[in-house]
Amino acid sequence: MPKPPHLVRPLVQALHAYVPGEQPKIKGLIKLNTNENPYPPSPKVLAAVKAAVDERLRLYPNPTAERLREKLAALHRCRVENLIVGNGSDELLAMAVRCFVEPRPASRRGRASRHLVQFFDPSYSLYPVLADIHGADKNAFPLEPDFGIPSVRDLSRSRQWDFAAALTFVTTPNAPSGRGYPTRQLDALCRAHKGVVVLDEAYVDFAGEHALELALKYPHVLVARTFSKAYSLCFQRVGYFVGHPALIAALHKIRDSYNVNGLGQIAAVATLGDLAYYRANFRKVIASRERLARDLTHLGFVVVPSQSNFILARPPRLTAEQWLAKLRARKILVRWFAHSRVSDSLRISIGTPAECDALVRAARAILKQA
Amino acid sequence: MPKPPHLVRPLVQALHAYVPGEQPKIKGLIKLNTNENPYPPSPKVLAAVKAAVDERLRLYPNPTAERLREKLAALHRCRVENLIVGNGSDELLAMAVRCFVEPRPASRRGRASRHLVQFFDPSYSLYPVLADIHGADKNAFPLEPDFGIPSVRDLSRSRQWDFAAALTFVTTPNAPSGRGYPTRQLDALCRAHKGVVVLDEAYVDFAGEHALELALKYPHVLVARTFSKAYSLCFQRVGYFVGHPALIAALHKIRDSYNVNGLGQIAAVATLGDLAYYRANFRKVIASRERLARDLTHLGFVVVPSQSNFILARPPRLTAEQWLAKLRARKILVRWFAHSRVSDSLRISIGTPAECDALVRAARAILKQA
Repeated sequence: MPKPPHLVRPLVQALHAYVPGEQPKIKGLIKLNTNENPYPPSPKVLAAVKAAVDERLRLYPNPTAERLREKLAALHRCRVENLIVGNGSDELLAMAVRCFVEPRPASRRGRASRHLVQFFDPSYSLYPVLADIHGADKNAFPLEPDFGIPSVRDLSRSRQWDFAAALTFVTTPNAPSGRGYPTRQLDALCRAHKGVVVLDEAYVDFAGEHALELALKYPHVLVARTFSKAYSLCFQRVGYFVGHPALIAALHKIRDSYNVNGLGQIAAVATLGDLAYYRANFRKVIASRERLARDLTHLGFVVVPSQSNFILARPPRLTAEQWLAKLRARKILVRWFAHSRVSDSLRISIGTPAECDALVRAARAILKQA
Repeated sequence: MPKPPHLVRPLVQALHAYVPGEQPKIKGLIKLNTNENPYPPSPKVLAAVKAAVDERLRLYPNPTAERLREKLAALHRCRVENLIVGNGSDELLAMAVRCFVEPRPASRRGRASRHLVQFFDPSYSLYPVLADIHGADKNAFPLEPDFGIPSVRDLSRSRQWDFAAALTFVTTPNAPSGRGYPTRQLDALCRAHKGVVVLDEAYVDFAGEHALELALKYPHVLVARTFSKAYSLCFQRVGYFVGHPALIAALHKIRDSYNVNGLGQIAAVATLGDLAYYRANFRKVIASRERLARDLTHLGFVVVPSQSNFILARPPRLTAEQWLAKLRARKILVRWFAHSRVSDSLRISIGTPAECDALVRAARAILKQA
């Protein structure tokens, strides 16, 4: 009888075990660690989902999220063929790797563009994980000290950046810094590329501008969006790509037949029917963000200007790890990226005004003790 | 600027475009084509899901479906480490291919076990699709004329069956025939195998016996289950694998972080709290199945004895394709597999007693006209 390890592909054996994000069940905890929206979905969305919890749960959901894609097409002034919906945008990011990147043959040494998943450092920590799962090569290129994207000229001069990489991910606005990028710079970057570029706009609703037009302008550019963060629907897993029909059709071919659950589709459609509610929330989150950044700066934190629903802040006096522990002792959970370029900083999701105030009070108390 | 087709992997370019299952919006249609349960989820499940449609939708769901896995572990008398939950069992079937099967290198000719996805013909039509998406080899081995699985001796004598195949899928009870298999035969089959064997028990709640024990007995056997069919939850996409912790841990490594939506998790947990309701439904479906098989047999159909919630029936007088059209004209939708070994037959999902009666009445009328 075979022993299980021999049954698993060597590639998968070599992967690190997945460590799920912290979901502590501490009563009264202020959870500012996973960039969730502090405000609930709109009452209309909750009502629409509740009204759909009936006999229909026994039936398969629409396999292509047809109604949602129709609504999104109207919103973005594109065609249904420009759209694919995923089980969260994470599923689509994984599918993009499988669709556009050739796994590296075991015999291969050195790097080849068609095996390459490319991204900036720091950015969304999922990209290298997806490359490893697929057996692709990775190219992590450092962002500038202020988290800016290097110019095309600087990238061209470097020997490391590959404009022909099969797939390049750009988190815009950037995570974990919150830094936003002008569409004109993203346009120049996309224009210089020969492989597929995914502009991952998970946080774009909190930014000054978005680059969706580039997905409709260039045949090799996809824009990723999600209902999780800005639209308070993490629980229901709905994200989408906008892009050229040829790329979208290729992704549809490798999609699980019924990849988007039915109540998630209904929630997302209802969300698009009540955008005014969400736009008011964006303004509230942005106001809280600016106030929190100011308050923390007064306490000696160095805060990166943010275009997202979180801020990256380098704390004073103690290390980021110490701050993490001391805030946690006061029931405030923030995010620290231990083995990263930003290990001197904390990423803090924007909560309600009361939650932000609690954080500032806690920081003040910690500084008093330090 | 690059043209999109060059951006897509040749493997994906060669795939056929996905054709979603028929979801017609005909009023009064009797839908017996996709093996959905005719009965709704239990009132307790609907109440539990409704009660959860609140502020929590803004939060990420539990990444490993922890509570559901705890309940399943209690039900199946196994450990949480024996379980992984998927976005429907389809997602897990796809993950099994990616986890256990090496893609075939471009240069490779001939067949090698480690590149091989193996299954019986006919069985679930997804398996060859998953092999193609992954760039794996396929081996479709014919079931016996009565849809029985050949004995290990007969499989050994054949040159085609590969006991060392990286991954072998067995649909049990079989689809589309509905034929069930004794656990003792499945045990002998599993024992003879060197690669991973997935016993796909999507329909097992309508059968006389199940083989879950084999997933806990053998380190290379996984049992796939789903909440879709027996538990009336197609809409919410929840399925799971039971198996050795080493195989399960490998699958967790390649899982999307938040692959199971939150309301689906809540619905599945509530389902396990009201099994008596579902067991009563199984008995109703089985009674309807036996009555429908008898009624159709009286009309001249040749019906395969079924252990599932559908029957495969070879119709009299007209071709299966003609029957499909004539039933559809009477607003009854059944399934016909055009390019298959069972193209002379129709697969008919078991509906409510009223729906089954309507089908029999329609069949009688069609025969009168023929």
